[in-house]
Amino acid sequence: MSDLIQKAQLVKGTTTALGTSTTKEKNQALLILASELRKQTEFIVQENQRDIDNGRHNGLSESLIDRLVLNAQRIEEMADALVQLTELTDPIGKVMEEWERPNGLLIKKVRVPIGVVGMIYEARPNVTIDAASLCLKTGNAVLLRGSSSAICSNTALVKVIHDALKQSSLPDGAVQLIEDTSRQTASDMFQLNDYLDVLIPRGGKNLIDTVVANSSVPVLETGAGNCHLFIDESAEVQMAIEVAVNAKTQRPSVCNAVETILVDRIWAAQHLSKLISALQEKNVEIRGDTFTQKYGEDIHPVTEEDLYEEFNDYIVAIKTVESVQEAIDHINQYGTTHSESIVSDNEQHVVDFMNQVDAAAVYHNASTRFTDGFEFGFGAEIGISTQKLHARGPMGLEALTSNKYLLYGNGQIK
Amino acid sequence: MSDLIQKAQLVKGTTTALGTSTTKEKNQALLILASELRKQTEFIVQENQRDIDNGRHNGLSESLIDRLVLNAQRIEEMADALVQLTELTDPIGKVMEEWERPNGLLIKKVRVPIGVVGMIYEARPNVTIDAASLCLKTGNAVLLRGSSSAICSNTALVKVIHDALKQSSLPDGAVQLIEDTSRQTASDMFQLNDYLDVLIPRGGKNLIDTVVANSSVPVLETGAGNCHLFIDESAEVQMAIEVAVNAKTQRPSVCNAVETILVDRIWAAQHLSKLISALQEKNVEIRGDTFTQKYGEDIHPVTEEDLYEEFNDYIVAIKTVESVQEAIDHINQYGTTHSESIVSDNEQHVVDFMNQVDAAAVYHNASTRFTDGFEFGFGAEIGISTQKLHARGPMGLEALTSNKYLLYGNGQIK
Repeated sequence: MSDLIQKAQLVKGTTTALGTSTTKEKNQALLILASELRKQTEFIVQENQRDIDNGRHNGLSESLIDRLVLNAQRIEEMADALVQLTELTDPIGKVMEEWERPNGLLIKKVRVPIGVVGMIYEARPNVTIDAASLCLKTGNAVLLRGSSSAICSNTALVKVIHDALKQSSLPDGAVQLIEDTSRQTASDMFQLNDYLDVLIPRGGKNLIDTVVANSSVPVLETGAGNCHLFIDESAEVQMAIEVAVNAKTQRPSVCNAVETILVDRIWAAQHLSKLISALQEKNVEIRGDTFTQKYGEDIHPVTEEDLYEEFNDYIVAIKTVESVQEAIDHINQYGTTHSESIVSDNEQHVVDFMNQVDAAAVYHNASTRFTDGFEFGFGAEIGISTQKLHARGPMGLEALTSNKYLLYGNGQIK
Repeated sequence: MSDLIQKAQLVKGTTTALGTSTTKEKNQALLILASELRKQTEFIVQENQRDIDNGRHNGLSESLIDRLVLNAQRIEEMADALVQLTELTDPIGKVMEEWERPNGLLIKKVRVPIGVVGMIYEARPNVTIDAASLCLKTGNAVLLRGSSSAICSNTALVKVIHDALKQSSLPDGAVQLIEDTSRQTASDMFQLNDYLDVLIPRGGKNLIDTVVANSSVPVLETGAGNCHLFIDESAEVQMAIEVAVNAKTQRPSVCNAVETILVDRIWAAQHLSKLISALQEKNVEIRGDTFTQKYGEDIHPVTEEDLYEEFNDYIVAIKTVESVQEAIDHINQYGTTHSESIVSDNEQHVVDFMNQVDAAAVYHNASTRFTDGFEFGFGAEIGISTQKLHARGPMGLEALTSNKYLLYGNGQIK
């Protein structure tokens, strides 16, 4: 039997014990894990160094090496995050709804773990602890498949997890790492419907697209963000400029950063030059339509491809529009249904925008940078879903749960 | 451009108008459709007759022909169902949660339509009206792909839908039927991620398995039911027998009927012979373990395959067990996580069973036959989900919805 199937069976075998463990037991296990991470820092750093050495040997870029690094500070942050996780409300066992039928059947809808989560992820080894801890907190078993470049770090972290689970009352088989990091094991995971209830890819667009296209196990998709800001005719000038600069430049590499700014032509005629200056002061390259080009220097002509592009960089497209409707239509055509914002003082325009724009998060008078589990107040984040089934938008602990109906009768027959 | 892509674009183009239509507009469209169905009964019956003639010509069995038939009575029932649907609460627009963040951002989580639903289904043409009306009620556009054996009926029904939508304020492009019923169009639908938000297969196990294995569009899976009844040591005799007979024989062909009865040996020693007689009186074939065979005549030895089998017939497996734990373990191994029931007066056994059995619906002292959207009081049913993501168990209108976060600020930046 392959290592993959063997480990899949092992994790699945722990689901009943894990799913019925108490909040106290789960939190204790997380605290033990935090303590083991601190105790075994030296061992983890040493194993991580082997990945770094291999990475340098294989010519990995310094930015990828930086993602790989686990040092004392990063391990302390991981341990801290585990302690914080114990403070979050356990969603499992919560009665979501409860009603009685005319025949006397009492129906309770309760939150339960999903079961077995499969996680396929790239470089960052901290995902190993992050994914395992979120799954354990929600009573889910997890089968991990990280990248070959982080295999020594991931193996070390899972050893630490097992050391911790053995001291806890949770089954230590609940977290397993696939050590064979060949493409074949990832493809094999796509067909593990008998063992996995969901597959979560974490990494770049290629990884996610491959999983979505090939997995017959249901996928939780955390997709790209081609986000827009629309500056309405009635937008307050200072607010519009601050929101635009923040949404573009506060951290351009992330999915909730703005890629295209749509500007009403009337507002543009008066204030666009100020917006352009403010963006250029932050070293943002501007690609604008003909109208936009009149209001500044060094503006590249915007192309159709630019409007579909997630730059993830200090680049922004600016397009002027005649109306809020044109902005809405543009966003629904070019956007990726992630995060979209309007700055406006016109009530009807705001209502139309909020209702008609199809996205996980639609903002009025705020930066799109708040689409994030922590900023939403969830206390944890599995990722930001851009699909419409199961969970949409920032996913907290509840995204790792399902439901079960409990029906209490006294002999009801049909 | 293929007919498929053209129709997919057409339905997708209606989502904004449909998603923002009011409850009143949607209900009016459903009432007009009910009236058109009644008016055009003769036309529908005549087109349906062509499918029946083709079916007979192609040697379709009489039971399949029966599934095809649309007569005046069945059309009247369809129209009635539409009127009832208008009386159900519209889930769209409901504020599910609402909170304010420390920075003053107000976050509202609201119910929205999923967008575009793809429906792949077999013989029964009434699914055309059923699927279209549930989608319209929830503001979803729908791309229908029925079977070749019902193509004339489906085409006629979609013509009636278009006639109705043209008299309503909903976009008439919102419901489209793929007329090419080759296998290729079904396969092509599996890859329509740019147009479809979800694919719902309705039909036999083969159809569902094919869609799950091959679709990169997210699937709502309505799977098989290998359901169990466990009769505990403490079970009230009369209740246990009534529940067993009902769960097996009230309608053996459906997914929530019981396939295996697990009986505690102590109860069995005293009462199993009565249970066997009661089942045999209803012409149920019994396949039992060695212990069971002692308590009746004409009992076939049960095989390992029988225990995995969804008989969907007047056949039941009976297996005796030593404990509630053995019953739970058996169900979690052989079951399909659909509907499972315990008859018991022992409180601890009931708690263990309800908590540890992994299924969409777990019953105490009731027949499994209640796992059904109407029996749950949902007023409508899309199907019974056996997957854990998005929706689990009977799916009512809410299963056809997603959510959107609306964030209201006054210039918040990060």
